[in-house]
Amino acid sequence: MMIYNFAAGPAVLPQEVLRKAQKEFLNYANSGMSVMELTHRGKLFSEIITHAEETLRELMNIPDHYKILFLQGGASTQFTMVPLNLALEKKAYYTISGLFGQKAYEEAVKLSKKLDLEPIILSESKGDHFTKIAQFDKCQVDPEAAYVHLTMNNTIEGSSIYELPETNGVPIVGDMSSNILAVKYDINKFGLVYAGAQKNIGPAGVTIVIVREDLLPHQEMLSSMLDYQLLIKNHSLYNTPPTFGIYMAGLVFDWVKSLGGVDEMEKLNREKAVLLYDYLDSTTFYQTPIKNKAERSICNIPFTTSDESLDQLFVKQADESGLKNLKGHRSVGGMRASIYNAFPRDGVVELVRFMKKFEKEH
Amino acid sequence: MMIYNFAAGPAVLPQEVLRKAQKEFLNYANSGMSVMELTHRGKLFSEIITHAEETLRELMNIPDHYKILFLQGGASTQFTMVPLNLALEKKAYYTISGLFGQKAYEEAVKLSKKLDLEPIILSESKGDHFTKIAQFDKCQVDPEAAYVHLTMNNTIEGSSIYELPETNGVPIVGDMSSNILAVKYDINKFGLVYAGAQKNIGPAGVTIVIVREDLLPHQEMLSSMLDYQLLIKNHSLYNTPPTFGIYMAGLVFDWVKSLGGVDEMEKLNREKAVLLYDYLDSTTFYQTPIKNKAERSICNIPFTTSDESLDQLFVKQADESGLKNLKGHRSVGGMRASIYNAFPRDGVVELVRFMKKFEKEH
Repeated sequence: MMIYNFAAGPAVLPQEVLRKAQKEFLNYANSGMSVMELTHRGKLFSEIITHAEETLRELMNIPDHYKILFLQGGASTQFTMVPLNLALEKKAYYTISGLFGQKAYEEAVKLSKKLDLEPIILSESKGDHFTKIAQFDKCQVDPEAAYVHLTMNNTIEGSSIYELPETNGVPIVGDMSSNILAVKYDINKFGLVYAGAQKNIGPAGVTIVIVREDLLPHQEMLSSMLDYQLLIKNHSLYNTPPTFGIYMAGLVFDWVKSLGGVDEMEKLNREKAVLLYDYLDSTTFYQTPIKNKAERSICNIPFTTSDESLDQLFVKQADESGLKNLKGHRSVGGMRASIYNAFPRDGVVELVRFMKKFEKEH
Repeated sequence: MMIYNFAAGPAVLPQEVLRKAQKEFLNYANSGMSVMELTHRGKLFSEIITHAEETLRELMNIPDHYKILFLQGGASTQFTMVPLNLALEKKAYYTISGLFGQKAYEEAVKLSKKLDLEPIILSESKGDHFTKIAQFDKCQVDPEAAYVHLTMNNTIEGSSIYELPETNGVPIVGDMSSNILAVKYDINKFGLVYAGAQKNIGPAGVTIVIVREDLLPHQEMLSSMLDYQLLIKNHSLYNTPPTFGIYMAGLVFDWVKSLGGVDEMEKLNREKAVLLYDYLDSTTFYQTPIKNKAERSICNIPFTTSDESLDQLFVKQADESGLKNLKGHRSVGGMRASIYNAFPRDGVVELVRFMKKFEKEH
């Protein structure tokens, strides 16, 4: 049976990438060693991380004054590192259109209890159960603020920001965890971008940070592992980095490049998403929570039937048909199809076929 | 040519483990998915992490009131997390017998600039260029202190603590990064143990923390990703963990168990180390910095000739003979043989053979 993995992350990886990694798993570049066994201070790993960085820079058109970091700890650690590095003695705005945006804000609030920074909710759509992107007017933004934090794609709720809002000259910090390399953005409009790798980049355990270096103030007393400047100075090698994950990320970057880059990925992703949304819009048997089509995620598509027990049956029968991990997040319920870059179009076709059959039977 | 990898970490992994991981790389447990593609909330990964935890508990005889965490960020992140979680409003003692112990202390000092905690150097051997373990008397220890921090094995300097010092009832925090599972310790004598995985456990990107839960005070405002209690409550799944690294660690734990456990590993490691030390003690051509035999590391063995340019030649010619990554840390110079659990005895035999040949030629 063909397996399609709709998991929200860790998620499906490109087969070519997995096959290449498997093939050289015991003997990388004729070294007699696995990538996992390479010292991070040696020539071979140095080439791996440099290549990964350069390819990412090319894919996202990242100018030289933005630095790229390969870190650990996931986006959740960035919820702390971002305000700690950027917002001391400043205001930091958050627009909250989903649970992860809310968590980002809450971590800034925690820091503000002991340090001098002021997290402010600029807008939120919690009252609408996060079924839309929270809007704001740039007049609300103090131009002296550190940043406006946006979650670019709400993994759980299925909404996404495609047009960046006006922020009165204040840098945007973007959590791109679930749509980096899947949707094209102009990096020049961001002060900082971060993303966990486990959706569109590679295995869990690598976090990408892209930051405009001039935004980083000098802070001597920051904990080393939380200090962007120190980590930049050491080219992501202040301590031992997650070497194998970075290697896998580099292979995925090569794969994206070979397919035509981010423009092409977005095109393919839109085609996949349209297949599913068109069907969802054509039936009343299923509902999808994000009504504004311009705000719909092309990476994570939640939907429900009108009956919880029917949702459970759907997930169970889909699983038995090889359509795996379609259960929605507990806060939204129902189903969620996560169809990142590496998720094949055929899987979406299969899902729609299954949904039609299920509709007919119930 | 046979390759022997003497890297200090990331380091050599057991061939059986690598082969098994390679074999099931594309299709784990007949799931049609790679371990890297498994959702961390699913049954398959849940079994992987539970098995890894249980096997580690068994290998190290860890009682139930100690909790085990699989984290990210390396030991360097623990340098911050340990004082942040344990030492607020308290004294925290550090004995410093190497560069990593010094870094651990320095991170506590950084925190103390903004938070109420008091890091104290209990003893240090910097004046002796870290060629011995710094000693102290238990009378120096305030029984109300949070902990006494010890680096169990000084990876760079090649010294190790085998007999735990008396601490006046204050819990020991042990950085076991370079000798966990390689040397047997009584976990009951520790309040907390931490270790980066990339030496004796698995690929870089996983950090093990073992902590006596009753030592953790309730701190509501700690950043989530730095909060042991929150991470324990979520069984290392507060956010997405480094899933593939945890899987590899579990395989290594199985391998250690299959060989007879930590007792047997220590026995084998001592045999390997004796091969090298016996030769080092029998010649004046090479020197090893740790003179006190009871303090010599069985994991990391630094040595030099009496001439820097000869050292460079040694490293170069050894490399050409398949003896890789023997260059010592820049702070010590010369050579260093890291011979962790997975490093084969034959490699040490080869190294000694090469050393004898090199001695004869120079």
